Amino acid sequence: MTLAQVGVVGMAVMGKNLALNIESKGYRVAIYNRSKSKTEAIIASHSAKNLLASYDLESFVQSIERPRRILLMVKAGQATDSTIQSLLPLLDQGDILIDGGNTFFKDTMRRAEALANSGIHFIGMGVSGGEEGALYGPALMPGGPKEAYDLVEPILKEIAAKAPADQEPCVAYMGENGAGHYVKMVHNGIEYGDMQLIAESYAIMSKLLKMSADEIAQVFEEWNQGELNSYLIEITANILKQKDPLSGRPMVEMIVDKAGNKGTGKWTSQSALDLGVPLPTITESVYARFISALKDERIKAAQIIQGPNHDASIFQKDRQIWIEKIRQALYFSKIMSYAQGFAQYRSASQEFQWDLNYSQISRVFRAGCIIRARFLQDISDAFDRNKNLTNLLLDEFFTHITNQYQTSVREIIALSVQAGVPVPGFSSAIAYYDSYRSEVLPANLIQAQRDYFGAHTYERVDKEGVYHFIWNDACEERIDL
Amino acid sequence: MTLAQVGVVGMAVMGKNLALNIESKGYRVAIYNRSKSKTEAIIASHSAKNLLASYDLESFVQSIERPRRILLMVKAGQATDSTIQSLLPLLDQGDILIDGGNTFFKDTMRRAEALANSGIHFIGMGVSGGEEGALYGPALMPGGPKEAYDLVEPILKEIAAKAPADQEPCVAYMGENGAGHYVKMVHNGIEYGDMQLIAESYAIMSKLLKMSADEIAQVFEEWNQGELNSYLIEITANILKQKDPLSGRPMVEMIVDKAGNKGTGKWTSQSALDLGVPLPTITESVYARFISALKDERIKAAQIIQGPNHDASIFQKDRQIWIEKIRQALYFSKIMSYAQGFAQYRSASQEFQWDLNYSQISRVFRAGCIIRARFLQDISDAFDRNKNLTNLLLDEFFTHITNQYQTSVREIIALSVQAGVPVPGFSSAIAYYDSYRSEVLPANLIQAQRDYFGAHTYERVDKEGVYHFIWNDACEERIDL
Repeated sequence: MTLAQVGVVGMAVMGKNLALNIESKGYRVAIYNRSKSKTEAIIASHSAKNLLASYDLESFVQSIERPRRILLMVKAGQATDSTIQSLLPLLDQGDILIDGGNTFFKDTMRRAEALANSGIHFIGMGVSGGEEGALYGPALMPGGPKEAYDLVEPILKEIAAKAPADQEPCVAYMGENGAGHYVKMVHNGIEYGDMQLIAESYAIMSKLLKMSADEIAQVFEEWNQGELNSYLIEITANILKQKDPLSGRPMVEMIVDKAGNKGTGKWTSQSALDLGVPLPTITESVYARFISALKDERIKAAQIIQGPNHDASIFQKDRQIWIEKIRQALYFSKIMSYAQGFAQYRSASQEFQWDLNYSQISRVFRAGCIIRARFLQDISDAFDRNKNLTNLLLDEFFTHITNQYQTSVREIIALSVQAGVPVPGFSSAIAYYDSYRSEVLPANLIQAQRDYFGAHTYERVDKEGVYHFIWNDACEERIDL
Repeated sequence: MTLAQVGVVGMAVMGKNLALNIESKGYRVAIYNRSKSKTEAIIASHSAKNLLASYDLESFVQSIERPRRILLMVKAGQATDSTIQSLLPLLDQGDILIDGGNTFFKDTMRRAEALANSGIHFIGMGVSGGEEGALYGPALMPGGPKEAYDLVEPILKEIAAKAPADQEPCVAYMGENGAGHYVKMVHNGIEYGDMQLIAESYAIMSKLLKMSADEIAQVFEEWNQGELNSYLIEITANILKQKDPLSGRPMVEMIVDKAGNKGTGKWTSQSALDLGVPLPTITESVYARFISALKDERIKAAQIIQGPNHDASIFQKDRQIWIEKIRQALYFSKIMSYAQGFAQYRSASQEFQWDLNYSQISRVFRAGCIIRARFLQDISDAFDRNKNLTNLLLDEFFTHITNQYQTSVREIIALSVQAGVPVPGFSSAIAYYDSYRSEVLPANLIQAQRDYFGAHTYERVDKEGVYHFIWNDACEERIDL
C-alpha cells in the first residue's frame, strides 16, 4: 500500500473540501470520519481521486507517511479535545497535528501548552473562505512552532488562495500557539463590521432615498469597481438583484431581519475588552445583530414608540450626490473598523508575545476569505511603510482619505439620526475618529468623579505624580505609590 | 468575655468602615486583619467602640457567637479563596460567611457550589457607596441561600442606607448564589454609562457653547433640582466649582484626561455579549475610557488628523435653548442606558435562574450607591405597574418622556458630530432607540450575506421554515432541522 502524504480527520463539508483541495494538488490524502457513512459516501462519489479511506483511527494513522501531517477538521471544543486524546497514543515523535477548526484562541493556547513536551507538533490554523474557499483556495492562518510550520508550508501554499495582484499564496506563519486562531477570530469580527456598515448603507438608500432593491444593487455594483472593491460588496449586489422564485419580489425582502451569529464577533469584542482596546465599530455590529434578533419585541415596540417627525424630501433630489456621500461614509467607517481591529492585533501581539506581522496578515486576507478586498493591499502598504505604525489612522494614505471623506460621514449620520434610521456602525466610527484625534477628551471629569466618590486618584496636567483631592476640604494630597 | 455578634475579616477602608457602621447600630463586632498593624491602629483610634480584636483567625472565630455571621472584606480573587479555605475548618454548621468584596459573579457561583453541602451558608454581597457609604449607609445586594439571608437581614437593614422618599433600607435579597454580585456588577456598568453621558454633556457645553467650568457647574446644579436629580449630577457640579489651590484655575482642567477603570464595566459588557443582550451605551462608555487612556497616541494624532471645518457660532446665541436640549439628550440617553441594563438583568435572571425582582433592585439603588437618583423610583414604579415588563422603553412613563425628548437628542448628536465633538454615548442611545422601535431592520441583508457565503440559512417573512438559497442557481431549498 502506498502511504498517504497527508491525513484529514473529519469529513464534514470543510474537512471534505480541504481533503479534495489537497488531493487536487497531487497529494495522496488519508481520510477518516468518526461515522463511517460520510467517508463511504465521499469514496463512492470521488472514486477517481487519490484518497485513502480508513474506518478506525489506528489504520488511519498507519496509512500516513512519517512525519505525519494530520489536519483536524472536527467541531471546535470538546470534540477537538477528544480527537486529540485519541490520536496521541497512535502518533510518533515529530508528527504534526493541525487544528483547522473554528477554535477559540485560548483553547489553542491551552492545547499548545499541554502538547509542548509531547514530541508532537501542534498547529492551530484559522481557515477562512467557507465551503468554496476550502475546495478552491482558502485563506490560511497557521500558528504554532515555527519548525512545524516549515514542514507543512509547501502544502499550505499550494492549497491556499492566490492574491489576484501578485499570485502570492494567502497563507503565512502567524506566530506561536494561538496566534493563528486569534488572527482568524478578529478577521471574523472585522467581517461583522463590514456587513453592518453595508447594511446601514442599504437601509439609508432603501428607507430615506426610497430606492428599490434593483437600484441599490446597481449602486453596489458600481461601488465594487472602485476603492470599495471587495467580496462582500460584490455579493451584496448579487443578493439585491436576486428575485424570490415564489413571489417575484426581491429575495432580500423575503428574508426575516433576524441576524444570527456563531460567536466569533462576540469573542473579538470580549478580547478587546480584556486587552483594553477600543473596538466600538465591531462591537456595535455584534449588538446590532442581537437587537435584530429581538424581532417580537421590536414589532411590539414599533406600535408603541414613536419616531421623529421627519421630512425625507431632502433625499429625493440630488440622489446621485447622496449616494456618493453614503459611499464615502461607508469607506470612512470601514477604515475606522480596520484601524480598530489592527490596533487590537497590536495589543494582543504584545500581550501574548506573538510578534504578529500586520502587513503579512493583511496580505493573507487579500483572497480566499470573506473580507477579501482591494483595500487590504493599502493596509499592507501602510505597515510596509512603517512596521511600527501605532494606528492605521496615522498613515498618510488613510489620513488623506479620512480627511477628504469626513464631511460626508458627518452629514449622513446627522441626517440618518434626525430621520430615525439607526446607524450605530457609522456613529461609532466617527466617534472613534473624533476621540482618537482629540488631544483633550472630557475624561478629566470622569477621573475627577472617580476621585470624588472612590478616591481613585488622578494625574495633573502640570506636574508629575499621582494625587487625591479632598473635595470637601478643597485641598490636594500627593499619593506615594 | 462577651462574644461578638458579628465578625469582619479585612480591615482595609471598606472593611473597617462597615465594622464601624455595624458597631454604631449597637452590635459588638469582632475584627481581624491578616497584618496585625491595621487592627491595632483601628483599636487605638477607636478605643471607645465596642470592637473585639483578634490577631489570629482561630481566636477571631471563637470570639463570635453562633451561628456566626462573618463578613469578608478582602481583596477579590485569590485572597478571598484563601481566606475562605483558612476559615472553613474553624467554623461550625450553620455559620454564615458573607463575601462583601468586589467579586466577579462567576467566582461567587463557583464558591456557592463548592460550599453548598458544607453546612456553611455562603452569601455573596455587592456593596456600593465607597468609603462614606460603608460607614454611614451603603446599598447592599446580597445573594445566596434565602434562609441564610433571613438570619442576617436585620443587621443589613440597620446598616444600609435609607431611601429619602420612604426611609426603606437599601438592601434586599437578590437571589441564589451569584445574584447579588451580578446586580452590583451591572450597577457599576450603569455607573460607567451615567458618567460618560455627563462627560459628553460637559464636553458640548465646554467645547461648543464655550462655557466656563463655573457656568457649567451652575447648569448641573440646576439640573440636579429636576428629573436628573442624582448623586453623580450633584458631585459634577461640586467638582466643576472647585478651584485648584495651586493655580487658581478650575480643578477639573488640571486633571489629566485619562480615565481608569477597575474592570466591572468590562465585565458587564462581556456578560451582555455572552447573554446576547444589546448593551451599546455602557460598552461605548467602557471604550471611551480605553481611548482616553491612549493619551500619547491622541496627542500625536491631534497634530496629524484634521477635524471638520465647523462654524460654532450657531451655539453662541440662544444658549439657554441649547442647554435645555443637552439636558434632554442626557436624560433620554440615561433612560436608554438603564433600559439596556435592566434588559440585561432580565436575560441573566433567566440564564442563571435567579428570579430577580427588578422593582426591588431599582429601589435598593435609591440611596447609598453611586447611581442613586430620583429617577430610580420611576423605574421601580414601571416594574410595579408590570412586573413582566420586557423593556423599560415599553412603559408609558418612559415612552412619554422619550417621545418628547427625542428631537433634542437627535439635534444635539447631529450638531456634535458635525462639529467634531465625540458623542459615542448619545449616539449609541439613539441607535438603540431607533433599532428597538424598528419593525424592520436591515439585518435581512446580513442574513442573506451569511446564507450566501456560509449557507447559514434564513427564515422567510411569508411562511414557516428554515431555508437556504442557491444563489448561483436562483433556487431555494427548505432545510429540515
